[in-house]
Amino acid sequence: MQIRLFVPDDLFPDAGIFLSEAQAHYLRSVLRASEGTEVFLFNGRDGEFSGRISLLDKKKAAVGHLKRTRSQPEKKDLRLYFAPLKRDCTDLIVEKATELGATLICPVMTEYTSVSRVNTERLRLIAAESAEQCRRLDVPEICEPLSLKAFLSSRKKGDPVLIHSDESGRGRAASSVIDGTRPAAFLVGPEGGFSDAERRLIAQTPDTAGLDLGERILRAETAALAVLALYSCFK
Amino acid sequence: MQIRLFVPDDLFPDAGIFLSEAQAHYLRSVLRASEGTEVFLFNGRDGEFSGRISLLDKKKAAVGHLKRTRSQPEKKDLRLYFAPLKRDCTDLIVEKATELGATLICPVMTEYTSVSRVNTERLRLIAAESAEQCRRLDVPEICEPLSLKAFLSSRKKGDPVLIHSDESGRGRAASSVIDGTRPAAFLVGPEGGFSDAERRLIAQTPDTAGLDLGERILRAETAALAVLALYSCFK
Repeated sequence: MQIRLFVPDDLFPDAGIFLSEAQAHYLRSVLRASEGTEVFLFNGRDGEFSGRISLLDKKKAAVGHLKRTRSQPEKKDLRLYFAPLKRDCTDLIVEKATELGATLICPVMTEYTSVSRVNTERLRLIAAESAEQCRRLDVPEICEPLSLKAFLSSRKKGDPVLIHSDESGRGRAASSVIDGTRPAAFLVGPEGGFSDAERRLIAQTPDTAGLDLGERILRAETAALAVLALYSCFK
Repeated sequence: MQIRLFVPDDLFPDAGIFLSEAQAHYLRSVLRASEGTEVFLFNGRDGEFSGRISLLDKKKAAVGHLKRTRSQPEKKDLRLYFAPLKRDCTDLIVEKATELGATLICPVMTEYTSVSRVNTERLRLIAAESAEQCRRLDVPEICEPLSLKAFLSSRKKGDPVLIHSDESGRGRAASSVIDGTRPAAFLVGPEGGFSDAERRLIAQTPDTAGLDLGERILRAETAALAVLALYSCFK
């Protein structure tokens, strides 16, 4: 089992870097690592590097003798806009969306959204931890929440088609809407769905497409994971 | 929001049935239902029926004046065999697999499986609740756990191809392995993956196929949900 850590610093061959206090704690107390243990580092820009822990005490950790082990892959553009749910489900969406390749995750407040606050700092930690575990070399960007109306009106010409689930039976089949080689944006509503006014607003927004996810009514978080899986795992 | 309940009894027009004590409690204390409230019932055989609560006290509930609202769809054959994970993740797999259409869910014990007991009674409740919420008209069968070896040797000619995730880079693309119109069986390993001996055993088993789920290493539960989404939501 590899130890993989996301770091903000620039990484280059032979460099040495300090880790955060939280990472020092994690290495010592959770992973029982020690000086000399091999770790892998990535920052979302410079690829993946391996190195050895050169210093590890209660508050500090450093890694030295970096060697590049993988180059940074070209960044995809896979955006997930979702109505935040209760905390466990929101956490699940961020963790799984990171595994499934989302590059931008943005909470969108809708009429039937029952949570009023989203701790985006916490979601950034979850995304980083999930990226560390799934061997991604970048961490999805977590945006500050915005209203559905503000989000829809902020869309620009050239933005990827906004795909949303359509349970009316008139949605399009995944094979005609999802193409894993092109940028995509998914919009997933809250537990209670979008309001009628919101549905009209989405229908009036250019470059959107309703997607039929099958006859069962999926929970919001399941719908989010299903569309991301269709995009990232089907080829 | 419809109230939907899974019941074991036969359902037919104009019938009346008693609900379980747990359902009586759920209707009264969680949903604040009362006599006269409309509920929908299904049993996995007779389709869906609507009726009105005709009796509701602390321990008993009955529903009368049943009318058929949907006929029972033809049963699919979508089997998920998975190495049980820690409780939250196992619960998640059962809940989401039910939403995504699995018809049989079976825990399979492998060399690196770290849990030793699986409460299948509890998983049956989770599956029933998930079916109630997603408007399915059947509840997936939850099997008692069996060892990977016993499972593989119990496979018979005519069983659906056993599809397992293959992270070696030599796995096949979903488009060549998954066909949502035919019976399918998925096998998902534990956190640590299958052992080398288990991999050999799977490779020697007839009618199996390794599936490439993309470059990232998905957690076990994410892999389970991704393959089910590919099967059930792609068309």
